[in-house]
Amino acid sequence: MRSNQFVDRLRDIVGAEYVRVDEESRTTYGTDALKRGHPADAVVLPADTAEISRIAALCNETRTPLVPRGGGTGYTGGAVPVRGGVVLSLERLNRILEIDELNLLAVVEPNVITGDIQDAVEKVGLFYPPDPASLRQSVIGGNVAECAGGPRAFKYGVTKAYVLGLEAVLPSGEIIRTGGKVVKNVVGYDLTQLLVGSEGTLAIITKIILRLVPKPPVQVTMRASFPSVRHAVNAVTNLIRARVVPAALELIDGDCLEAVAQALNVRSLAPAGTAALLLLEVDGIAEQVAAEAVRVEKACADAGATEFLRAKDDAERQELWRVRRELSPSLRMITPLKFNHDVVVPKGRVPELFELVDRIKTQFKLRIPCFGHVGDGNIHVNIMVTPGDEDEIRRAHEAEGVLFRGTIALEGSISGEHGIGFAKAPYLAMELTGPTIETMRRVKQAFDPNGILNPGKIFQ
Amino acid sequence: MRSNQFVDRLRDIVGAEYVRVDEESRTTYGTDALKRGHPADAVVLPADTAEISRIAALCNETRTPLVPRGGGTGYTGGAVPVRGGVVLSLERLNRILEIDELNLLAVVEPNVITGDIQDAVEKVGLFYPPDPASLRQSVIGGNVAECAGGPRAFKYGVTKAYVLGLEAVLPSGEIIRTGGKVVKNVVGYDLTQLLVGSEGTLAIITKIILRLVPKPPVQVTMRASFPSVRHAVNAVTNLIRARVVPAALELIDGDCLEAVAQALNVRSLAPAGTAALLLLEVDGIAEQVAAEAVRVEKACADAGATEFLRAKDDAERQELWRVRRELSPSLRMITPLKFNHDVVVPKGRVPELFELVDRIKTQFKLRIPCFGHVGDGNIHVNIMVTPGDEDEIRRAHEAEGVLFRGTIALEGSISGEHGIGFAKAPYLAMELTGPTIETMRRVKQAFDPNGILNPGKIFQ
Repeated sequence: MRSNQFVDRLRDIVGAEYVRVDEESRTTYGTDALKRGHPADAVVLPADTAEISRIAALCNETRTPLVPRGGGTGYTGGAVPVRGGVVLSLERLNRILEIDELNLLAVVEPNVITGDIQDAVEKVGLFYPPDPASLRQSVIGGNVAECAGGPRAFKYGVTKAYVLGLEAVLPSGEIIRTGGKVVKNVVGYDLTQLLVGSEGTLAIITKIILRLVPKPPVQVTMRASFPSVRHAVNAVTNLIRARVVPAALELIDGDCLEAVAQALNVRSLAPAGTAALLLLEVDGIAEQVAAEAVRVEKACADAGATEFLRAKDDAERQELWRVRRELSPSLRMITPLKFNHDVVVPKGRVPELFELVDRIKTQFKLRIPCFGHVGDGNIHVNIMVTPGDEDEIRRAHEAEGVLFRGTIALEGSISGEHGIGFAKAPYLAMELTGPTIETMRRVKQAFDPNGILNPGKIFQ
Repeated sequence: MRSNQFVDRLRDIVGAEYVRVDEESRTTYGTDALKRGHPADAVVLPADTAEISRIAALCNETRTPLVPRGGGTGYTGGAVPVRGGVVLSLERLNRILEIDELNLLAVVEPNVITGDIQDAVEKVGLFYPPDPASLRQSVIGGNVAECAGGPRAFKYGVTKAYVLGLEAVLPSGEIIRTGGKVVKNVVGYDLTQLLVGSEGTLAIITKIILRLVPKPPVQVTMRASFPSVRHAVNAVTNLIRARVVPAALELIDGDCLEAVAQALNVRSLAPAGTAALLLLEVDGIAEQVAAEAVRVEKACADAGATEFLRAKDDAERQELWRVRRELSPSLRMITPLKFNHDVVVPKGRVPELFELVDRIKTQFKLRIPCFGHVGDGNIHVNIMVTPGDEDEIRRAHEAEGVLFRGTIALEGSISGEHGIGFAKAPYLAMELTGPTIETMRRVKQAFDPNGILNPGKIFQ
């Protein structure tokens, strides 16, 4: 616990009601979706950039760890104050400041729920494409800090492609402004893109200028069943050759389908014997979507699809997506604990990734359902463990190392969406060379010479 | 001139034939498209990354300025050794190493001409969209170092959207590898995007992994004439409302049309009385392109186009583009000296930018034809000057300051494509705040503590 004097200074900055030192707050704000928390010493809820600047300067002066927090939905512990200190929740910075229909941009504060931004811009015919699974809980500041992805990334790109500019508070308390309202800007270094994905270790993001695109007026959802993952990947290859870029391209493996069937006690979500299900969505203007849907069906048929469905209306569309939506809740029903990894390989090597997972299943006697964004080669590998089964947990951790090494051998990366946080920090040197990590450390020092901002993340 | 001993050490690294200290080489390699050069002390032509590493280490040890050079086509003096030292030409690193059709990527060395990459990937049905005007002269390493744009950026984005990973040599001689062959990667800081647009001041790029997309099979080119810039911008707004994202959206003003007419002595390139010409191109699959072309015509007609042409075949397409291709040569024929600025504003403010230019023309008695990528709000403002006319050159420089301040007041940026180099370095603080510039300086120090790499660029 920090001294009373320190807490008093926090109260001076934000007002007493916005500083929390009770045990429940310290624990709640010390935990995120990784479920391996550490209590904060104090939680502070500033009202604006000016207060955040003063909090940063205070923490910098007193060498107190300062951990920015958005929705707390991260899977690698990015918002966990692993070394104690102050958790700075951005929850009061939650306004959409501007939606500029003509210039296709929005200016938002960091704690707006991402799905709310999507709803607001869609009302005026615009579209913010990134769609992490957490979009109804996670906030845009966290999405930017982690560079969130989602199913639509194959066609539309990840969060970084939509961030034009930022306001951010440095650990010193100084305020920087990067980028701006223009889509092209080559004035100095691209600090905007450096901050995207920096996991709250370089600066506290206080304002975001987002690029928007026109909302595609028509969407068509399709589902194809395959006898193996390789068949499904062949369909993806056929699609690329046919010049079709679907808005979503989700792969769900047989173990996942089994998990959903078991959890819901229904067998109708996919045909019997399906080892890989593809959910595909094309979007755009009507003429294009109609033409692309035909090509999608052909690409799947040529790859040996055993069944192909096309949603005729929104009800059918929701039904096709149901298996995907039920996936995470179903996996949680089977076991409350899973190690959820977001490895990514060049898309052509997805079959080899699944072969690697099959070997791991056998070697370590683990249940590992997989699903993901196959167009990006980004597969969520869910190692299921029974809480309290120490031997299984040990095997799962060993399996992680094999998974990560194997992914890198396939020219892949250990994280496509979730970031490093502290959960994956031990594996950083597996993927990056010494000089590359040292360069990153020097960049960290350039922003945060005293190392107060989100310490223990990315680097161990 | 550096000491003989230093030059001997360079010869030891690359072989005597690849070190040049004759006056012609020192001058030629000391000049780029800005035409304000400074002679190098020595020019070195390494064969590979290992030699570059040793050259960097030597320059770092001896505190010798080291300036990487690609095609030398930059407009802000990025490749000019303003403080002397060694120019490191990457011309021998000119191979396409890999085109991976399945994974939609290419691995290239930095000195491949960008247009050659496009040709090579198009042969296998793929597409590298960025198309700076210099694409038949400039090289991909320079495009990456400057984050080049071009007409297709409105639909496809600028160079940064296509760089997945880099190999680069630090000033210390250490080699870093950033990103990789996957389209999603959130492992540590995004050094890839930090190096893109860093103008050779942080590291020497030695290998580039490029993201490709499927080549759009069909393209349709259209031309619309308008009685004013505001009418043309209204057409662009209509297009955005109609959900059409053209692959190219080029605006050419009346002064440019006059310059081309005068240079070629033809009047047929645009109808008489045209104050703004739009060149529009839509691409994609046939059904989509056909539907989009109809919407483009309607958007232009609704905005008051006085003429609308649609190319029926490739010959007609080339004819429509002719005025755009002839633009730069025509401007050069009128005067060999122009100050070519690539300012950018939110696209809805383009009419205000043209009003600003009109005021500047009157106030400073200057001829200033403008053209550019109107979908991005990125306008090339060409201040024409007569070499030797000191008074006109002084007025032109004063006009630059007014242009830049006015652009920033319109929420714009002083450079959308060309970068800062040394030509725009005096204006950096006009756009960026003190803490933002100081942060960039600390990033520079993190990479280059001795300040040997391309000194005098970006920062004064």
